[in-house]
Amino acid sequence: MDGEQLTKDKYEKIMDIAKRRGFIWPSFELYGGAAGFYDFGPLGAPMKKKIIQKWRQHYVVEEGLLELESPTITPEPVLKASGHVDHFTDVMTECKKCSASFEVTELVKEETGDDIEGLSKNEMENYLKEKKITCPECDGKLGEVYEFNTMFRTAIGPKEDRKAYLRPETAQTIFIDFNRLQRIARRKLPFGVTQIGRGYRNEISPRRGVIRLREFTMAEAEIFFDPDDPSHPKFSQVSDEKLRFWPSENQEEKSRELTEKTAREALDEGIVCNELMAYHLAYAKKFLISLGLPEDSIRFREQLPGERAHYSQETWDMEVKSEKFGWVEVAGFAYRTDYDLSQHSKSSGTDLTVFTQNDDDGKKVLCHVVEPSYGIDRPLYCILEHAYTEDDGRNYLKLKKDLAPIEAQVFPLVAEEELEKIGKSILKKINSTGIFAEYDDSGSIGRRYARADEVGVPFCITVDHRTPDDSTVTIRERDTTDQIRVKIEDLPKTLCKLLNSEIEFEQAGEKV
Amino acid sequence: MDGEQLTKDKYEKIMDIAKRRGFIWPSFELYGGAAGFYDFGPLGAPMKKKIIQKWRQHYVVEEGLLELESPTITPEPVLKASGHVDHFTDVMTECKKCSASFEVTELVKEETGDDIEGLSKNEMENYLKEKKITCPECDGKLGEVYEFNTMFRTAIGPKEDRKAYLRPETAQTIFIDFNRLQRIARRKLPFGVTQIGRGYRNEISPRRGVIRLREFTMAEAEIFFDPDDPSHPKFSQVSDEKLRFWPSENQEEKSRELTEKTAREALDEGIVCNELMAYHLAYAKKFLISLGLPEDSIRFREQLPGERAHYSQETWDMEVKSEKFGWVEVAGFAYRTDYDLSQHSKSSGTDLTVFTQNDDDGKKVLCHVVEPSYGIDRPLYCILEHAYTEDDGRNYLKLKKDLAPIEAQVFPLVAEEELEKIGKSILKKINSTGIFAEYDDSGSIGRRYARADEVGVPFCITVDHRTPDDSTVTIRERDTTDQIRVKIEDLPKTLCKLLNSEIEFEQAGEKV
Repeated sequence: MDGEQLTKDKYEKIMDIAKRRGFIWPSFELYGGAAGFYDFGPLGAPMKKKIIQKWRQHYVVEEGLLELESPTITPEPVLKASGHVDHFTDVMTECKKCSASFEVTELVKEETGDDIEGLSKNEMENYLKEKKITCPECDGKLGEVYEFNTMFRTAIGPKEDRKAYLRPETAQTIFIDFNRLQRIARRKLPFGVTQIGRGYRNEISPRRGVIRLREFTMAEAEIFFDPDDPSHPKFSQVSDEKLRFWPSENQEEKSRELTEKTAREALDEGIVCNELMAYHLAYAKKFLISLGLPEDSIRFREQLPGERAHYSQETWDMEVKSEKFGWVEVAGFAYRTDYDLSQHSKSSGTDLTVFTQNDDDGKKVLCHVVEPSYGIDRPLYCILEHAYTEDDGRNYLKLKKDLAPIEAQVFPLVAEEELEKIGKSILKKINSTGIFAEYDDSGSIGRRYARADEVGVPFCITVDHRTPDDSTVTIRERDTTDQIRVKIEDLPKTLCKLLNSEIEFEQAGEKV
Repeated sequence: MDGEQLTKDKYEKIMDIAKRRGFIWPSFELYGGAAGFYDFGPLGAPMKKKIIQKWRQHYVVEEGLLELESPTITPEPVLKASGHVDHFTDVMTECKKCSASFEVTELVKEETGDDIEGLSKNEMENYLKEKKITCPECDGKLGEVYEFNTMFRTAIGPKEDRKAYLRPETAQTIFIDFNRLQRIARRKLPFGVTQIGRGYRNEISPRRGVIRLREFTMAEAEIFFDPDDPSHPKFSQVSDEKLRFWPSENQEEKSRELTEKTAREALDEGIVCNELMAYHLAYAKKFLISLGLPEDSIRFREQLPGERAHYSQETWDMEVKSEKFGWVEVAGFAYRTDYDLSQHSKSSGTDLTVFTQNDDDGKKVLCHVVEPSYGIDRPLYCILEHAYTEDDGRNYLKLKKDLAPIEAQVFPLVAEEELEKIGKSILKKINSTGIFAEYDDSGSIGRRYARADEVGVPFCITVDHRTPDDSTVTIRERDTTDQIRVKIEDLPKTLCKLLNSEIEFEQAGEKV
């Protein structure tokens, strides 16, 4: 009970900071809001961009995957072929009395704790009757159970006669551009293509804040490979990484036990389907660690057969533990087989097979696909929650230094013209090198430190009375509150190294 | 005639490179395409991100504007209040015989060269009759002229009863979040908020390639100020910048003459409405120059009163000269007055006025707004066109070094295991520092240089037979084809400095 209370308080504190200082808040508040939509404010938007930048560094620059940016509006034939028009559905029911709508599996989980995902519509309807579940809003009777396609509909052209949808995933344009992309990749297998951008899902009744959005930012990668050779050239670099699995058997046996295995063991013991999957689970864990999430807050949960998307033969959810929301899925890893390429090949009448060797004399195959698919909004919330720290009367966001939206604050110690002038010229100099710094001269220096701590500013630079004499300033480090003195001329380089953790704080200047 | 032929060839060459190498191509090709939608491929997507990154550096980091990221789906009440439901329309007509649709002003411009934007519906209908304009496709009679709202429609929720649109501009969520944002900006005036993201316009009949898109990427800034004080604290830093104007009077007098004035002169002579507008025109020109566009390819055209959006009292289009498309609008600068805040205040019943001083004892005002609004897709095309260079049998993209999508290529001189091993370890080292480099070992070294030149790779690194002995490699510069030798251990730092133009190429190593 106390624990619950604590958690609730902490969540409220985090959301208070998030709204007041500008990380996230519900969209369209002026017009009463709209469930499932959030704004990323002046701190949230740059932080989201930093997560994306790290993702690109990890997957595009270092892993060498290609990049694509396609429209979010997608003509119907694409999503008909991909199966989304027929299968991208949720099961819903409506209250006969107050007309409220509910997604059935969510309703059941909230009312009874049972997970009924994977049951048929009939089974769900029977379950609702058996358990005598009524409308949680007005206790009214629930109506029949039916499927609702959760894609947002639109139409293209002046007669609005060309049906289209907002994409439910970014993956589909990668599949339909396959022939172009594999020529650009110069026909090597395996090769992969990423896409970062908005995805949409017209959720029936989203009620979990920023965790369940109707419009969200995704970062996906489709890895194309010869089904006879699912090896990854760099598997040995991650094969010793330890991962915590919750396989479907354990879930079916109602066992909460996690199995810890290295990526190599998971592959050898058949826990995961192939080497590319094993590689990408391990690689993804390394990515989350690079965002500052603790090792023990990460697990991989296998989706049960009834849960999986229509295109997937094996799916692992990478989940992060949240005090508020429990285990939160932040990425899914699906073995899509050749499902999508095969469907698009049939629907378009286009050959999408490729030679398995560069010189065109190998065999021809329809590539199989392993897909790492991230949401970006959820990790951002999880990072905020894990970073929130109360310590000795001080509260601060212990964000990784390279994720903090404001990278440095510049303070004149007191409101004197000389110090202010120096402070502003320092700000300009730092900003011109691409470091995002802000100037703050209002209130006591203690109050300004507190304000910076609250949003995780890693370094505060103070212009004091020594500065006009010897052109030095102090830098204060957020987590330790230790201070050093450095020369103004060294500031941009020193800050840059500190933000990228290239030097230790104590070694970056003279201790104060 | 020759000139036209040349231009046509050049455009085709650029689009050939764009499609084949992966800058841009029409979307949904596998299903016959959809006019007004383009994909940004493995070279176009990172290049677009670099333009955006530069925009953020210019407007967010250095100019100190805040940032917001909101949903693209927008509930109807927001766009009803903003006037878009009633006024975001194009005038269209349909062929009575073949049913083709046309945007009337575009049709007239193509058929007669006349610009009839700003005429009423009746006047347009009469004009079409007088000039005996028929369907350009089948010569059929054209039907009546009517207004078509060019917002894409959708609906939110399981009953799809909550009308919504895809945002026609990113600006509106900045206006409706005004109270939150100005508190976060700590109530200083002027302050500004930016938003970068997708915008949508259901064009009636888009036929100008990547210049006229139905889904595009925008970068907008709303600058809020006290209407009694439209000054900008840093105006003196740009006031001497020379700008070329095409004011509305010149256009009305059919004069093509441009008026060159400094920002200060344009302000003093009343060419532009206020200091904030003058500042932002000059600041925007500096941004285009930083993208590598030549000074004489930039002009500012004032929109005629009949052309202006419903919310604007004065609008300047920043245009870039394209050989293929003529003068292309890449950004618009609208003086939106207090139109939007006033409308949202009325519609929502919320006070959106602010004190003009921090200490809450000043006067209260409804802020006025100057808005720089960029498209990002069009500048990208213009940059490609201006960068395309044929020179002495060689063709290359003379992109600014910090805009090139591939920043470096690594080549082993010949296919020998030792050189390949060194090459791959160099690639890994460079990529790990965030520089986007690729490895290429196929074909002769000359062919590989040509392939790199064609997509504007600024630096090619070659591992040759001297490398195993003295751990040096050559770097070749794209524009001059000059080469230097540098130590492998210095490569990441040297490349980084070269890409940011911090050192001269000749001084970066030993001349070869």
